[in-house]
Amino acid sequence: MSFELSLNTGTTPNLSLAEACEAVATAGLKHIGPWRHLLEQAGGGEAARAIIDEHGLTATTLCRGGFLTATGEQDRAAALESNRAAIREAAAIGTSELIMVVGGLPSAAHLIGGTGEAGDKDVVAARQRVTDGIAELEPYAAEHGVRLVLEPLHPMYAADRAVLSTLGQALDMAAPFSPQTVGVVVDTFHVWWDPQLKEQIVRAGAENRIASYQICDFNLPIATDALKSRGMMGDGYVDFPTISRWVAEAGYTGPVEVEIFNEQINNQDAGTTLETMKARYDELVLPFLKGE
Amino acid sequence: MSFELSLNTGTTPNLSLAEACEAVATAGLKHIGPWRHLLEQAGGGEAARAIIDEHGLTATTLCRGGFLTATGEQDRAAALESNRAAIREAAAIGTSELIMVVGGLPSAAHLIGGTGEAGDKDVVAARQRVTDGIAELEPYAAEHGVRLVLEPLHPMYAADRAVLSTLGQALDMAAPFSPQTVGVVVDTFHVWWDPQLKEQIVRAGAENRIASYQICDFNLPIATDALKSRGMMGDGYVDFPTISRWVAEAGYTGPVEVEIFNEQINNQDAGTTLETMKARYDELVLPFLKGE
Repeated sequence: MSFELSLNTGTTPNLSLAEACEAVATAGLKHIGPWRHLLEQAGGGEAARAIIDEHGLTATTLCRGGFLTATGEQDRAAALESNRAAIREAAAIGTSELIMVVGGLPSAAHLIGGTGEAGDKDVVAARQRVTDGIAELEPYAAEHGVRLVLEPLHPMYAADRAVLSTLGQALDMAAPFSPQTVGVVVDTFHVWWDPQLKEQIVRAGAENRIASYQICDFNLPIATDALKSRGMMGDGYVDFPTISRWVAEAGYTGPVEVEIFNEQINNQDAGTTLETMKARYDELVLPFLKGE
Repeated sequence: MSFELSLNTGTTPNLSLAEACEAVATAGLKHIGPWRHLLEQAGGGEAARAIIDEHGLTATTLCRGGFLTATGEQDRAAALESNRAAIREAAAIGTSELIMVVGGLPSAAHLIGGTGEAGDKDVVAARQRVTDGIAELEPYAAEHGVRLVLEPLHPMYAADRAVLSTLGQALDMAAPFSPQTVGVVVDTFHVWWDPQLKEQIVRAGAENRIASYQICDFNLPIATDALKSRGMMGDGYVDFPTISRWVAEAGYTGPVEVEIFNEQINNQDAGTTLETMKARYDELVLPFLKGE
């Protein structure tokens, strides 16, 4: 079956992996995209795999690797080691897709709990370190049958979270590598505004790089915690029919993952969230993926 | 003289035009970039010109025309009429540069006090209406010796303020028109994150389109009112030396305007703001414009 819905656990941050799997299965869905800390809480990749299997689900992605922009030798080595662990975990839970949030400027690292260099605002150099990191990790990912999935983040996060801001830039970064080991994710929240979006989705499809289609809306006003400005499909300003058509026309037929960081949605009953997300998906996304 | 500093009055929103001119002259600067409502308060373009002249200043830009994305006939006609008035006002105060903030989605128009259509999230069509509007206004601008200066805004404002998000997109939109009548502004806050920034600044220079260089920093966290996330140069994450070098290498030698919407800066004494802005400019911007 094409275009099956998946719950990214960022949408239900108060649930353990077992609770999230239970909610997903109860809602009649078959897929989940877990975050790494849930695997750790569950006792590691193998234990997590058992929980996911037990509920009859499959993992569509693992969130997340990345944060490859540190300048210090030690920080850099730690980041690579963490990414190797993430690659092993992805393989352990049975997904080939490891989502990569590449990291921001060293000068903004403290904002997300990291260490960096106060004065370092060189975004060009930071991007080069990401490319170097991907090159270093790629053979290890290949050995484990895992694809590094580059995620362009909305430019409002360019300083603190990802110096990778557009799909075109992600494809340029992926270009030297096999599409089997380096792909891209199209996340509507991050890329809806991009004037090159259509042509870059076409390109991503032609280059066999689309590893995941993630959906959620872009809400306004921007939330006090800017990370939580994501909304339920239909509540914000994203044109889901158009983007979904482009993604399907580019040849993508995989699962569609819902990842919403939003104070209100994150704290409501997961069953309610899942029912709303199914309804909105059926109304605003699926018909256009199917070309109806 | 090249690279002379100019105060955009958005930085000192509590001052009248006369007060802003006084503060600028006292600080030893020669240029001001006023917003339209200050002209209106001063009694119109001619009266504003007299005030600017009286202080020995010149106007570097007029802010702002634009908002060309409405769908309704009446809203559209009103927008064009307002832009024609802005063109006359720019000519009246003696600047050739009318900054254009092109407008957002009809579905978000209510957020900035406009009217629109709740369901209309078609960003592709909105961009086409901007292009159509520019085509309609361009002969009138040419008659008045005024250039329509397209301003790409940070993508966080794509829904409510400007469906024009990158310098490359602005240059594509400008391409059918003479560089005498349609230009672009490079505003560091809006474009610093763009992976194509260097090549598009080179292109903008080669196409003689750089009408203004506006500077301010990109602060984090994003302010509660996202519009006010702009910061004093050096307080945020923009790499001013690098971008300033690119702008100068592209052949730009005009004034450099400081436009900062920031709760704290906007409410402090204008003299303090002007002194800080001069010092930061001398440290972080001017030496790199001069290629030192």
